[in-house]
Amino acid sequence: MNTLELQTKGGTFLIQPTELSSFYIQELISEEAKMMHDAGTSFIRNEIENRLEFMETPEAIQVGPELIQKCGELGFLGLEVSEKYGGMDMSFKDVLHFTTTMSKGYSFTGALGVQTSIGIAPVFLYGSDFLKEKYLTKMIAGELLSAFALTEPNAGSDANSGKTKATLDEEGNFSINGQKAWISNAGIADIFIVFAKIEDDKNLSAFVVEKAFGGITIGPEEKKMGFSGWSTCQVFFENVKVPKENLLGERNKGLKIGLNTLNTGRIKLGASCIGVGNKVIQHAKEYAEQREQFGKTISSFGAIKDKLARMSAYIFAIESAVFRLGNDIDILREELTTKGEAFSNAKINSLKEFSIESAIVKVFGSEAQDFIIDQGIQIYGGMGFSADCPIEHLYRSLRISRIYEGTNEINRLVIIKEFVKKGMKGELDVMSAFSKVYTEINNDSDEYSLNTIEKFQQFTDNLKSLAVFVSGICLQKFMQKLEEEQEISMHISDLLIQIYVLESTLLRIQKLQLENILNEEIHFANLNIIAFDVFAKISNSMNELIACFETEKEASSLILARNKYLRFPHVNVKEERRRLADYILD
Amino acid sequence: MNTLELQTKGGTFLIQPTELSSFYIQELISEEAKMMHDAGTSFIRNEIENRLEFMETPEAIQVGPELIQKCGELGFLGLEVSEKYGGMDMSFKDVLHFTTTMSKGYSFTGALGVQTSIGIAPVFLYGSDFLKEKYLTKMIAGELLSAFALTEPNAGSDANSGKTKATLDEEGNFSINGQKAWISNAGIADIFIVFAKIEDDKNLSAFVVEKAFGGITIGPEEKKMGFSGWSTCQVFFENVKVPKENLLGERNKGLKIGLNTLNTGRIKLGASCIGVGNKVIQHAKEYAEQREQFGKTISSFGAIKDKLARMSAYIFAIESAVFRLGNDIDILREELTTKGEAFSNAKINSLKEFSIESAIVKVFGSEAQDFIIDQGIQIYGGMGFSADCPIEHLYRSLRISRIYEGTNEINRLVIIKEFVKKGMKGELDVMSAFSKVYTEINNDSDEYSLNTIEKFQQFTDNLKSLAVFVSGICLQKFMQKLEEEQEISMHISDLLIQIYVLESTLLRIQKLQLENILNEEIHFANLNIIAFDVFAKISNSMNELIACFETEKEASSLILARNKYLRFPHVNVKEERRRLADYILD
Repeated sequence: MNTLELQTKGGTFLIQPTELSSFYIQELISEEAKMMHDAGTSFIRNEIENRLEFMETPEAIQVGPELIQKCGELGFLGLEVSEKYGGMDMSFKDVLHFTTTMSKGYSFTGALGVQTSIGIAPVFLYGSDFLKEKYLTKMIAGELLSAFALTEPNAGSDANSGKTKATLDEEGNFSINGQKAWISNAGIADIFIVFAKIEDDKNLSAFVVEKAFGGITIGPEEKKMGFSGWSTCQVFFENVKVPKENLLGERNKGLKIGLNTLNTGRIKLGASCIGVGNKVIQHAKEYAEQREQFGKTISSFGAIKDKLARMSAYIFAIESAVFRLGNDIDILREELTTKGEAFSNAKINSLKEFSIESAIVKVFGSEAQDFIIDQGIQIYGGMGFSADCPIEHLYRSLRISRIYEGTNEINRLVIIKEFVKKGMKGELDVMSAFSKVYTEINNDSDEYSLNTIEKFQQFTDNLKSLAVFVSGICLQKFMQKLEEEQEISMHISDLLIQIYVLESTLLRIQKLQLENILNEEIHFANLNIIAFDVFAKISNSMNELIACFETEKEASSLILARNKYLRFPHVNVKEERRRLADYILD
Repeated sequence: MNTLELQTKGGTFLIQPTELSSFYIQELISEEAKMMHDAGTSFIRNEIENRLEFMETPEAIQVGPELIQKCGELGFLGLEVSEKYGGMDMSFKDVLHFTTTMSKGYSFTGALGVQTSIGIAPVFLYGSDFLKEKYLTKMIAGELLSAFALTEPNAGSDANSGKTKATLDEEGNFSINGQKAWISNAGIADIFIVFAKIEDDKNLSAFVVEKAFGGITIGPEEKKMGFSGWSTCQVFFENVKVPKENLLGERNKGLKIGLNTLNTGRIKLGASCIGVGNKVIQHAKEYAEQREQFGKTISSFGAIKDKLARMSAYIFAIESAVFRLGNDIDILREELTTKGEAFSNAKINSLKEFSIESAIVKVFGSEAQDFIIDQGIQIYGGMGFSADCPIEHLYRSLRISRIYEGTNEINRLVIIKEFVKKGMKGELDVMSAFSKVYTEINNDSDEYSLNTIEKFQQFTDNLKSLAVFVSGICLQKFMQKLEEEQEISMHISDLLIQIYVLESTLLRIQKLQLENILNEEIHFANLNIIAFDVFAKISNSMNELIACFETEKEASSLILARNKYLRFPHVNVKEERRRLADYILD
């Protein structure tokens, strides 16, 4: 793929404006996606919510296969897969709509997500015709359950250091030996996507391994902080005979399959925070409306309104970013297939192209979700500590969100690494953007417009200039040892994360206006709240970055840029939060 | 108590300097406290840590009574009680040393804390001679176990709204009816400190109620997010006959007993964060030193060092504040007894006088503890989600710290309310302090000294001026409706919290220097890290406060004050964190 020639490119949000015409908002959901949403909602209600307490116990692991099969019958498992294999060939944004819907199934959502995103997806995208014909239809029907066996006890973030080995016999077939850890769905899977090094290869290869091949032992269910209804075990491979046809993709290219698969996982994790977060807000709001203290319902207190509004505005922001990203991936895939690329290659490449944005929605989504759940618990007060509280299990279960699909630390490092790589390769013209800011940095600042949208457009542009300039300065100074300067890298990533989310929120508001479905009072409240939050986070990152320099003088250009660009257009944010909370409570 | 005449007063930290001569640091621990620490440490090791997994299961509740009795035999239960009743008559700061030691017992620590802090303490401080003679010696021996029954299903933060009722019979004895919820130790207690309204009283009264009186039913153990080894139940009272002698303190004065008792609980909660936090750091450090990824131990990565250093600096800060406060309470108690107050009155009044500082250490301690545990889990990565991880249960159990002993929201409101009250009464001369800042606000800012201690002294003074000015402005503007402006109140409280913690840290450093036990490299690293953290938090609070005003113009004096006073003396904080982390790892 020659990225230079593409119309749609990843990472560009920082240095060029986004066309509103091709911007997607969830309010424009297709009829097809809406139907799937309704079907998913009724499945969750009937099969999960009706017996939620049971579904979060270890015993629920055993009903997983039956439920996944039901999902298969309802067509839930092959949304991304072409119709040839029984799939629905839906757009990625529509798949994300459905991810949001299904995220309210908690432990079962986990099992379902493994089956579709890291079981079916890699076979569909990387599998030979033989593998697809042999496995895919049955996987989509929910008859074959799958797991993804990448992590090992001593190979987590550093996945390629895994020690599982595949030796070749004379016919070219494999024999796999090794041990995998933290394998989700291991206890119910018929098929494992196994990553192992062939002979003395330096890099991993991937295999589709049937449990029926023999030699596979599943460890006992891990006792975990949460997600008790979702299987997680160690898996041991002892001379597991795997026919050569079951090599997935090319030899030595396993890590790429693994990482690209996780890339999709990151976006879906971001999407699932929407469903989880909405559920938490619904519960917290209901509790706050019925709980009375000091003679009134606690929902009437400013401290509670403040929480509800922040929680809700975060959801609005994640939605804006997730659906923007899903649509951009659809557009690029379309562009690539138009240019003649095969469907699966086009899909792989479009996902890969947006690795920066994928990491952004993972980090932002999981951290906002954490805030939402934590504040939800706090609204419940003592009741929040009780297992009878409907969101108690979420505090425990969703703690994993900042750890898996790459820890948020690893994802922050991915963001900056990919950004630098794209800059170096010339795929992103960061240099021109930097030069432009460099020439204007001593000019007086512009006044902010009185028009809300224009004002936040200016604010967003200011933040982009700030980020371009700051990353330029830091890269110049620390380039040689950026790998050793993780703290600096992570702060710069934080600038990118915040800007992407803010711009997505602003673009959504603009699109809502364009579509004549803008509710100024409520949508502007969301925008004001998120913009202020972004301002707070970026203020903090800038202080941190400045404090990475030895002297104030060395940091002087950062200070100059901060003083010029980091100015929040004044808003009474407290009142905006109350306004949004009152709307939620109404 | 006429507070105006006191030498030692609560709330003064904001408006006057603290004498170093009377400042206490934990490094000056007494021989007696050290002996108790050693005894406590060996108890925790032998009785708890040897069977930690079991001690965090519901079955462990039943071994509680036996262990509390052992604590009684070892003299652990009566540290604060006079020798007459078998106690040790120790100073409060020495009690806090022991709280820190015992906090590593987790669920059992909870049971122990109820027995001493909210069982024994109220009987000792408020009980008649009759009650003390009848119960206290046995409670201190661990032969009578106790619980504190204040909360009701519909009366949590608003404790005085409880519906439990005590009716009087002709002889003046009571009959209690009602229901209490979330009662810690209920499942093992022989004695309940019960709060109920006598007849049609508006306010609560307190009673010492034996389970043996009959009519008390204990509900099943609550299923909780954590602290599974610590009993929590509902308690039902049906015509429980209580002799008139068992009224604790005066009729209608129960709420005061309740709130003052919780006041001690707040300080002890702050102290217990020290022990918990240190344990987490020890585990996380050991894991980081043995876990290898990308060819090196993860402890060598900047991102991990950054975490360890922040975690550790927080502990240093909590310690500084907690022991400062404990000592101030000792000094005031001494002053009051010298002036002729009875011991228990002197103790009650000295605790009450420092209610602002007590709320501060509760809020700061529990939030720092949360950060420490959360980052500890993150260092463990996937392993942190496993029940086999030695800190996994802490993430669940200690979530309650921000909820009980008054939610952190309630505590923040207490801080500002008490502060305003003291100002109005003239106990704190906030007006003079405000006037002084008001006259100098337009002067040029002073340059920071190059000397570390002087520099942070100036920085702290600046922050005090800022807080005095900002609270003055906000009180002027919102005074009439401060109750409705919880958001503003809470931001101002945050200024006070941060300043108290920073100043305590700085004073500790100065005292260490005075005592010739300062390790400049390490202690200054702690100071730099905490001061920067305080700067970050106050920056955020100031942005929030400014965004509580309708226009930038209305907020102009806040902006002026921020620009003048909120300037961080430049430090390469990243390197300071690495330095501290390397020291911890060494």
